Amino acid sequence: MGDTPSAFTVFDHAMMARALRLAERGAFTSRPNPMVGCVIVQEQEVVGEGWHERAGEAHAEVMALRDAGGRAYGATAYVTLEPCAHTGRTPPCTEALIGAGIARVVAAMRDPFPKVDGAGFARLQEAGIQVASGLMEAQARQLNRAFFSRVERGRPWLRIKQGISLDGRTALASGESKWITSPQSRADVQRWRARCGALLTGAGTVLADDPHLTVRLPAGVPFTPPLRVVLDPGLATIARGHVRDDAAPTLYIHAPDAKPSREFSAQRIAVATDGRNLDLLAVLQELARREINEVQVEAGATLAGAFLSAGLVDELLFYVAPVLLGDRARPMFDGLPIQAMVDRYELEVCDERRVGPDLRLLLRPRLG
Amino acid sequence: MGDTPSAFTVFDHAMMARALRLAERGAFTSRPNPMVGCVIVQEQEVVGEGWHERAGEAHAEVMALRDAGGRAYGATAYVTLEPCAHTGRTPPCTEALIGAGIARVVAAMRDPFPKVDGAGFARLQEAGIQVASGLMEAQARQLNRAFFSRVERGRPWLRIKQGISLDGRTALASGESKWITSPQSRADVQRWRARCGALLTGAGTVLADDPHLTVRLPAGVPFTPPLRVVLDPGLATIARGHVRDDAAPTLYIHAPDAKPSREFSAQRIAVATDGRNLDLLAVLQELARREINEVQVEAGATLAGAFLSAGLVDELLFYVAPVLLGDRARPMFDGLPIQAMVDRYELEVCDERRVGPDLRLLLRPRLG
Repeated sequence: MGDTPSAFTVFDHAMMARALRLAERGAFTSRPNPMVGCVIVQEQEVVGEGWHERAGEAHAEVMALRDAGGRAYGATAYVTLEPCAHTGRTPPCTEALIGAGIARVVAAMRDPFPKVDGAGFARLQEAGIQVASGLMEAQARQLNRAFFSRVERGRPWLRIKQGISLDGRTALASGESKWITSPQSRADVQRWRARCGALLTGAGTVLADDPHLTVRLPAGVPFTPPLRVVLDPGLATIARGHVRDDAAPTLYIHAPDAKPSREFSAQRIAVATDGRNLDLLAVLQELARREINEVQVEAGATLAGAFLSAGLVDELLFYVAPVLLGDRARPMFDGLPIQAMVDRYELEVCDERRVGPDLRLLLRPRLG
Repeated sequence: MGDTPSAFTVFDHAMMARALRLAERGAFTSRPNPMVGCVIVQEQEVVGEGWHERAGEAHAEVMALRDAGGRAYGATAYVTLEPCAHTGRTPPCTEALIGAGIARVVAAMRDPFPKVDGAGFARLQEAGIQVASGLMEAQARQLNRAFFSRVERGRPWLRIKQGISLDGRTALASGESKWITSPQSRADVQRWRARCGALLTGAGTVLADDPHLTVRLPAGVPFTPPLRVVLDPGLATIARGHVRDDAAPTLYIHAPDAKPSREFSAQRIAVATDGRNLDLLAVLQELARREINEVQVEAGATLAGAFLSAGLVDELLFYVAPVLLGDRARPMFDGLPIQAMVDRYELEVCDERRVGPDLRLLLRPRLG
């Protein structure tokens, strides 16, 4: 809009930071919608706060307006994403803001979602509301990186999670892997699972480790169970394992020519192969079509390596236990095409912290 | 002595902390002597400070007494290690303290060195000086862990240093390893080398990487060049490599039956083998006899793995670059005897920090 970022005051930043913190409360529940927070301010006093908790329920702006009541008249609304101008599962937020008499809207960023994409700002300005955008935009993009990945790239944000030893091993040669990391790390990973629309694994992991791929959080923490996705080209595992229980839905993705050995009720879908392996980009595009923003891959070295080699990994989450498993233990990634030092796969550390006795590292591929 | 640690005041702790910081200034130069610091206090005012800079030169107590001059009379001396009562390369510190009229000596710990070992405290008490010991003893032991290792165990403190990728690799399959870690990490490691009496490698590393094994510090930082030690059972590398230059002395350790293919001037010594490999404990005992307190091993997976398997590693220093080198790259340790998860080699993280883009981890074996 007309304002440049430098036109925002320290107070504006404080309010947007507050709105971003509110938005994050929806991390486990808002999907497939983005997380959004809203703060309403009258004469430098916060008179209303809200966030979007659950798709189909009220948006952040409406929650904050309800909280503010009559004090919204003439106030400024800080919102982490452009307000919607269309009727989706709920009425447009623009009309609620206009109806409440809001005088100024400060947004962190424009919503790239095709049904919004500037239309919200236009509608507010048309109604005489002063609009500014771009305040803490980098933070707002970061918050909803998964939603924007789906909307802008047509595929989910993809994170690989591995529990590893200091010498980069995920299991012994025998396949034994319970447990490399600490109970604290295994509890911490639940919060990363709860953010996801899908938890993805391969047939090999289902056969070898029989994971539940469910979210286990302390009682009272609301979350929506992520879809469990099993890449199983030949449908070899359909009768197997905890992923078939009713704790969460499960989707099998298989090769076009796969025939299940027996009738089974789970959802399944075929995607193309290169002859032997599933087309991983097609897999992700299929998940995006199902409104999945964020996928966590918890798989063995073959599938994890294939995602990396295909350039489809956005983030890596490693829990590094301070143990050594030796040179015969299993590697983290198979098949990376690295012949010389120049081919190495470069990452950068975004976050590092101790979790119990372990180290937790969050990394992203270094681009360029 | 009579005092229990709880008898020490907050002021006592502050003074001993100051003495410990002073002691550390000798880290690159005091060997084979321990690092020692001394603070002299008159009526809660610091009147003298000193540390032991170089073997053969004045001890910390003497430096601090010189600094204090006449104000040492009736003062308290805080010293990080029991003062010596014998004449070594310099006269006994006890006599200097007595002569200056010191009224009270507070030491962090007794010196286990056989020529001291309580005799210093006894001499001071005999002269009517009040003596207390045990203030911040854990910190003082930690500071001189290498000196105590030699004196108490008859072998140097041994640290393995490796520059590795996140997937636990030290080189590509081709042997290419320049450079996995950042220039910042390669600068940081110089300070760890400078602490050492010896830098140890194997014949394989000399042939493959031709390291200098020297200390490169900014101009003006004093240090004593560590001995370079090459484990070369068959004396295959004696004509080879930068380790033969005159930047520092070099010691070759070989099998009893090895014959050099030609005359050569470098120091060499034979130790026993188990037929094929050198007896690593005997190697370390030989280095201790040469008054080496601290050894840093910078070697390949075979030798590093052999030290680990032999239970001779006290500390591990890893520079972890945020890169992946893939499953065909070289492992950190060969030959660890790990069949099942219960056999895993357990460590604990003592220190973790960012060095440039890399992570630096300092770990120790978890005992018991």
